[in-house]
Amino acid sequence: MMSGIRSVGRGWVWVGHLAGHSRSLSGQGQGRLHTLIPTTAATFSSHNRLCQLSNVAPVDLPPAKTGHAAPLDKKREFMSVFPDIVRDLTEVGTHSDIPDAQKWYAKVLQYNAVGGKMNRGLAVSLSFKLLAAPDLVTPENIRLAYILGWCIELLQSFFLVADDIIDGSKMRRGKPAWYLNDNLGLGAFNDAILLEAGVYKLLQKHFRDAPYYMDMLELFHEMTLKTALGQALDLLSCPAGQRPNLSKFTMERYNAIVKYKTAYYSFYLPVALSMYMAGIRNTDNVRVAGITDRELHRQARTILVEMGQFFQVQDDYLDCFGDSSVTGKVGTDIGEGKCTWLSVVALQRASPSQRRIMEEHYGNPEQESVNKVKALYMELGLPATYRAYEDSTSSMIRIHIQQISRGLNHNVFFKFLDKIHKRSS
Amino acid sequence: MMSGIRSVGRGWVWVGHLAGHSRSLSGQGQGRLHTLIPTTAATFSSHNRLCQLSNVAPVDLPPAKTGHAAPLDKKREFMSVFPDIVRDLTEVGTHSDIPDAQKWYAKVLQYNAVGGKMNRGLAVSLSFKLLAAPDLVTPENIRLAYILGWCIELLQSFFLVADDIIDGSKMRRGKPAWYLNDNLGLGAFNDAILLEAGVYKLLQKHFRDAPYYMDMLELFHEMTLKTALGQALDLLSCPAGQRPNLSKFTMERYNAIVKYKTAYYSFYLPVALSMYMAGIRNTDNVRVAGITDRELHRQARTILVEMGQFFQVQDDYLDCFGDSSVTGKVGTDIGEGKCTWLSVVALQRASPSQRRIMEEHYGNPEQESVNKVKALYMELGLPATYRAYEDSTSSMIRIHIQQISRGLNHNVFFKFLDKIHKRSS
Repeated sequence: MMSGIRSVGRGWVWVGHLAGHSRSLSGQGQGRLHTLIPTTAATFSSHNRLCQLSNVAPVDLPPAKTGHAAPLDKKREFMSVFPDIVRDLTEVGTHSDIPDAQKWYAKVLQYNAVGGKMNRGLAVSLSFKLLAAPDLVTPENIRLAYILGWCIELLQSFFLVADDIIDGSKMRRGKPAWYLNDNLGLGAFNDAILLEAGVYKLLQKHFRDAPYYMDMLELFHEMTLKTALGQALDLLSCPAGQRPNLSKFTMERYNAIVKYKTAYYSFYLPVALSMYMAGIRNTDNVRVAGITDRELHRQARTILVEMGQFFQVQDDYLDCFGDSSVTGKVGTDIGEGKCTWLSVVALQRASPSQRRIMEEHYGNPEQESVNKVKALYMELGLPATYRAYEDSTSSMIRIHIQQISRGLNHNVFFKFLDKIHKRSS
Repeated sequence: MMSGIRSVGRGWVWVGHLAGHSRSLSGQGQGRLHTLIPTTAATFSSHNRLCQLSNVAPVDLPPAKTGHAAPLDKKREFMSVFPDIVRDLTEVGTHSDIPDAQKWYAKVLQYNAVGGKMNRGLAVSLSFKLLAAPDLVTPENIRLAYILGWCIELLQSFFLVADDIIDGSKMRRGKPAWYLNDNLGLGAFNDAILLEAGVYKLLQKHFRDAPYYMDMLELFHEMTLKTALGQALDLLSCPAGQRPNLSKFTMERYNAIVKYKTAYYSFYLPVALSMYMAGIRNTDNVRVAGITDRELHRQARTILVEMGQFFQVQDDYLDCFGDSSVTGKVGTDIGEGKCTWLSVVALQRASPSQRRIMEEHYGNPEQESVNKVKALYMELGLPATYRAYEDSTSSMIRIHIQQISRGLNHNVFFKFLDKIHKRSS
């Protein structure tokens, strides 16, 4: 069953991943609906039922105050591993007969793999420390968690370099998008492939003898496939050179797109890697109170995919209303005709004449068209809706975190959530 | 040491992979040079010395007459597996919440993965049958070899879809290049990623329990990285929007480019996969007369990389002089300013005034410039040089095949060679 947010009249209803929750919590499939912006008393009531099922804490407890997930010194520590990453991928000895290509590879890595917020990369070590038995949390293992973090950053930069070409984006992380450098042009796509290939070379170098090496390889493969499928679905909504197909802009489709395109690799991937390192290996090994390791992975995936969807809604909002000096990129969603949270909500709320504005201007990169769509978004009150959505979704995810089994340290999820709530970049 | 062909004056000298050959043949590093188009008696003599070292057959034996490597019925058998490949990658159950993306994936596979010569794909089953013990050659294993063949065809289509965009090629396999369909545009890059991701999903589905599963994953990773590095080196010779850097057009660089860009994945990859299936696993397991499995892989790689370089020279020739109704594509190398065998030989042979023609017109896509370069190629007698190169390289590779150890059935290599010698597409 798809997770996500659906519109009911003009309000919002959260549709949870109940197939999973019901099994792990009560086996009865209760609490199927819980409101985000409540529309009816009925949804409130199922909301309350879910709270009673929670095995951890009542809903209205203050949110976990865990501070910032990745303080500056952690980021510095993580960055300090980067030169080794570059060396691992371009060291003399491997491919020594093509030094020019090696030098180029180093340049590609240096330009594209650093400069972001690095949350995905830092999340591996962060959650490893929270999930692993204390005797596993050694300096060597933390270093390995950093290397896995760099693998995610490489995968992310692979997607970003490719996406920027596909979307014609001009800026990334406050600098020109890679393909705009040195007349690189479409050859930049080959550099994206190099970034992806780096992931597997690093895994081979550092994890070949780990019992979970194959798990990790398969996980990266699966995440890559899912991300590309999500991207395909996204591109199908607005084929190049054509008007976007607004009839396809439903909240259900939107949620499917972002689940695949963003949530899996950005949220589940880092935590799953740390779970593998902590010895939780997606097997039928029974861990806590009859819950298997596989079930722990499933529960983590459920919550993290929800969080990833939340994150993408924020991303969509920031693409339109964010400060580009803070986000480091210039939004292109309206001009590209992307199926975004804003466009889906706008279409749900639009009167026939407002819908015509969308039909006429959405997907046209001319500044005038973009401005008209932005004005419509304001007229429809989307910024306020977004803020309400952000608060209620954040609370709802907190509830879900508290509902998941005791087998996983909930701070893993709360720290993620603290990091993204109210973010501006 | 780089393998390949270097110019000595106006002649050609083959520089073998001696680090390898000397160890496996005599341990003395003899036979370092053997001529392609002999320039001096000295090279002839070292040539003869190498022949004496051969442990199989004298040089002047008639070439192995093994007929066509992939008769039509084999091709049909291979093709008959393709619908299962599509189903494996798009079956209901996996990603059932995004049926549109699944449908799209099927379309991408059907357009891009079939229609070529399929030599790479067929090579796996072909060499498996020659290398494996008879009791391993079961219908089930042949089917598995076909599936591996399809993995290579998917990897190949990943590269082709991306390359066509990067090079602005218009035709592929007699049809419009994928990115030119339905105004697909740069979104086609994402489809390339989907094709690549299919490789790992197929391997997981069919080989997860095989003892050589990890070997295969790592091999595909390594081949992908090497191909992208070769492509990077190629692109560095002719950066987009700039004049090609003709001073970099040396035979040494050319050989490095094609070794990485083409030879590894097109020639070594299929045979290595069949070796894994046959139980030859790149380990220190001693097999024949003190030769380890790792050494067998090394020897196969050496010969197959040479063959791949030969193949790419042919490809370069056909890009310029081939019949596009036979090759199914329209050449772009001159217009794109690619570092090709023809351009390297032309620059070696050119008088100062002829070099100026290259400097002025090479890398200019205008038909007039392309014609001028082609006329220069004719003036320099490149078609005749090519024919001489083809014959002598073919003979030379036969010698190398005969020199490799008895541990591998030489027909594996001879069949490859028969397939590419004198090819017109």
